[in-house]
Amino acid sequence: MRNQTLLTDLYQLTMMNGYLKNDIAEDVVVFDVFFRKNPSDNSFTIVAGIDQVIDYINNLHFDEEDLNYLRNTNLFDEDFINALKQFKFTGDIYTVQEGSIMFPYEPIMRVKATCFQAQLIETAILNIINFQSLIATKASRVCEAAKGDAVFEFGLRRAQGPDAGIYGARAAYIGGCAGTSNVLAGKMFNIPITGTMAHSWVQKFDNELEAFRAYAKVYPNNCLLLVDTYDTINSGIPNAIKVFNELKEKGYQPVGVRIDSGDIAYLSKKTRKLLDDAGFNEVKIVASSDLDEETIYSLKIQEATVTSWGVGTNLITSKDCPALGGVYKLVAVEENGKLQPKIKISENPEKITNPGYKKVVRIYDETKKYALGDIIMLEDEIIDPKEPLTIFHPIYTWKKKTFRHYSLREMLIPLYINGKLEYERKTVQEIKEYTNKELNSLWPEYRRLNRPQIYKVDLSQKLWDLKNEMVKSLREGKN
Amino acid sequence: MRNQTLLTDLYQLTMMNGYLKNDIAEDVVVFDVFFRKNPSDNSFTIVAGIDQVIDYINNLHFDEEDLNYLRNTNLFDEDFINALKQFKFTGDIYTVQEGSIMFPYEPIMRVKATCFQAQLIETAILNIINFQSLIATKASRVCEAAKGDAVFEFGLRRAQGPDAGIYGARAAYIGGCAGTSNVLAGKMFNIPITGTMAHSWVQKFDNELEAFRAYAKVYPNNCLLLVDTYDTINSGIPNAIKVFNELKEKGYQPVGVRIDSGDIAYLSKKTRKLLDDAGFNEVKIVASSDLDEETIYSLKIQEATVTSWGVGTNLITSKDCPALGGVYKLVAVEENGKLQPKIKISENPEKITNPGYKKVVRIYDETKKYALGDIIMLEDEIIDPKEPLTIFHPIYTWKKKTFRHYSLREMLIPLYINGKLEYERKTVQEIKEYTNKELNSLWPEYRRLNRPQIYKVDLSQKLWDLKNEMVKSLREGKN
Repeated sequence: MRNQTLLTDLYQLTMMNGYLKNDIAEDVVVFDVFFRKNPSDNSFTIVAGIDQVIDYINNLHFDEEDLNYLRNTNLFDEDFINALKQFKFTGDIYTVQEGSIMFPYEPIMRVKATCFQAQLIETAILNIINFQSLIATKASRVCEAAKGDAVFEFGLRRAQGPDAGIYGARAAYIGGCAGTSNVLAGKMFNIPITGTMAHSWVQKFDNELEAFRAYAKVYPNNCLLLVDTYDTINSGIPNAIKVFNELKEKGYQPVGVRIDSGDIAYLSKKTRKLLDDAGFNEVKIVASSDLDEETIYSLKIQEATVTSWGVGTNLITSKDCPALGGVYKLVAVEENGKLQPKIKISENPEKITNPGYKKVVRIYDETKKYALGDIIMLEDEIIDPKEPLTIFHPIYTWKKKTFRHYSLREMLIPLYINGKLEYERKTVQEIKEYTNKELNSLWPEYRRLNRPQIYKVDLSQKLWDLKNEMVKSLREGKN
Repeated sequence: MRNQTLLTDLYQLTMMNGYLKNDIAEDVVVFDVFFRKNPSDNSFTIVAGIDQVIDYINNLHFDEEDLNYLRNTNLFDEDFINALKQFKFTGDIYTVQEGSIMFPYEPIMRVKATCFQAQLIETAILNIINFQSLIATKASRVCEAAKGDAVFEFGLRRAQGPDAGIYGARAAYIGGCAGTSNVLAGKMFNIPITGTMAHSWVQKFDNELEAFRAYAKVYPNNCLLLVDTYDTINSGIPNAIKVFNELKEKGYQPVGVRIDSGDIAYLSKKTRKLLDDAGFNEVKIVASSDLDEETIYSLKIQEATVTSWGVGTNLITSKDCPALGGVYKLVAVEENGKLQPKIKISENPEKITNPGYKKVVRIYDETKKYALGDIIMLEDEIIDPKEPLTIFHPIYTWKKKTFRHYSLREMLIPLYINGKLEYERKTVQEIKEYTNKELNSLWPEYRRLNRPQIYKVDLSQKLWDLKNEMVKSLREGKN
């Protein structure tokens, strides 16, 4: 495994050194990881990347090469270099389970550690969680549009570097994709891999028919032909049907055709008819041409007869929204053994943080089938599920809702306690299944691609009071 | 170094196996790497990532783990697994020098190898070149807007995974940035690193003044203070001035302030006045709040008094255009020892490839100060620089231009010959300097951020004739 200990912003190190020199490096602080906005105007975000955060934390150590590099920057003294040499993460991290559906402003991870330790790990945690959550969410949108058709992730060549291809394929699978073209991701995470031929295969032969026959000879049981190299309807499909007939005579079942250009609505319907007329009703039609959820959605409305979709650039980069803006904000500082809430205020009201050591509680209907709303509350608050529960909108406080029959779930669970891993690592397959359950806990209104209903995330009365008091006191100028 | 041999699309492997089974695996083919559109409506693209392509090619080998994985997919037989075991790249690759400015449809890399070898390496080459070229180009746009002010890359937490942060920082530096916040990128490529404090530093202390004093104590020679945690003008700047005065008394020169929110035009001008009035004319103002080239350009017009810029998300993800669509297309096949041109046609005229084994020649004025246009031509064509040179537009062929006094430069140089590295690897600093020279060879009209002039890239008469004949013959239905 690569040593990613220096995968951090320099200011984390200058601050760590500053804490050390001010004798506060061992002070315990709490940071929340949260985001303020779902990607692509979605109503939710799928949190992914927890497993890679574990790899990162488990491997944290400054090796000699790292220390020499830092020494040579002339920014730090030996005292600090020595402290780094001893570095070991010994704090607590709580996290939502990987694959959980979360909403803006909710802590999705909560780090309680010395400020020396907590500061170092900010950047890598955000980098990992922001990207994988972005792609898992985007994939869920594409799969939503495909209405149950298989969607394959084909974006490696356009991904933002090797890791983006690899971890993007992982996240896309968690978000609902059926597989990837990326062989390394397949190997690393045991994700189904898929792929047959490119245009270069067809071009390599003297003509298309010869190219198809050469392929069918090698893969008689897995014959999926790319039909748009010259002319889909007038050349590709007739040649494919010839080869499919030859396979059928030998007792093989041809698999499908892939269309990679042109108007997919028109071509897929025409192709379906030609294949059906030739007796190949079972043969699949794969489409893969600069697709995204909007295009698939609109092709579906036009009754394109595509059976599976290969989605590249727009999925692996989340093209319309290529970053999730997850942040890591100080929310409490331990003073005399007690956690004191901290707040960051701003002219921009939505940038004011929720102070204190908090948890997220999800309210379900009694049968736990549907999620009804979430409450962000202080860790020590308790809800008595036998009593009616009233929640209110954090800005329009007159917007209230009371639940009488409900069940509850705490979203944050231990990841590390005293530096020891407490989280049960899951296979990517298990995470994908859990995500699917999470998606099914949302009413369809929340899953709509365009202008979905906004899911309720409220603050407890106690947290709301604390926040408003702190804002007021800071605005009255205590600095 | 990580083994990235499986960083490829599955169809490359299924095709390789298909070539092997059809006894054509050793046939020599030529692929061109090119893109069809500059990112962000720029008029050019800076090609970056060549050094990582070298790392990738040098390390290509299927290890036992890779082979076992492939075996277990049940897609391949032992014959193919054995061929992979022996895999070694022995072909020729030509490339433009890293940091070169290139234009749509020009081959930026040309691979001549057995189809078995050439097919494998497509995906990783595109992944590496597409991303780094995208970010280098984006960085050059941001730096163009900043008009000589230093621009720092701050995007690691929002980058699309660790590699995107690391190689994005490298590419941003090549494209013109002065440094990065990314420590690991700094270590790997010897890029200047930069960073001071985050809001969490200020929040950690009882009040802002105390936080600033604590920082100044540790970094008296490098005191740059983040002034927007509570209120930039009413708290941050007055507190910073207090601390700067204390430093000055002790004989230190304070460095600067950073503004990370609010209206940068208003705040920077107000800040400049307050600092100047207090005698700190030398103190820098760093701005870093969701910036991109458009915002910096417009802040400059409003005479924001920012001296350097920290640019995060929008640079590291190239937010407005998060993918460069570089492709890898078959352009020739060796038959009886001679390269036969190949073409890929399409309903979409701009998707028709330029056939044949080609080179790119750049035409400069006599002094080699300015680039005047490029010609894509067949490798065996020769231009006599003593004769006038007429080029013509490949679509509007009546658009012609004749050069009488000019000099020429061939853009493609050897990267690998017979599998042996022939390219002189450069430091990132050297590449950056070369890119700067390349940028200065473009008239300002080509460097304009909005609606720049289109740089001339023409085809030689011979290539134009070849292409048109091949299209005609294919349209007349030879398949």
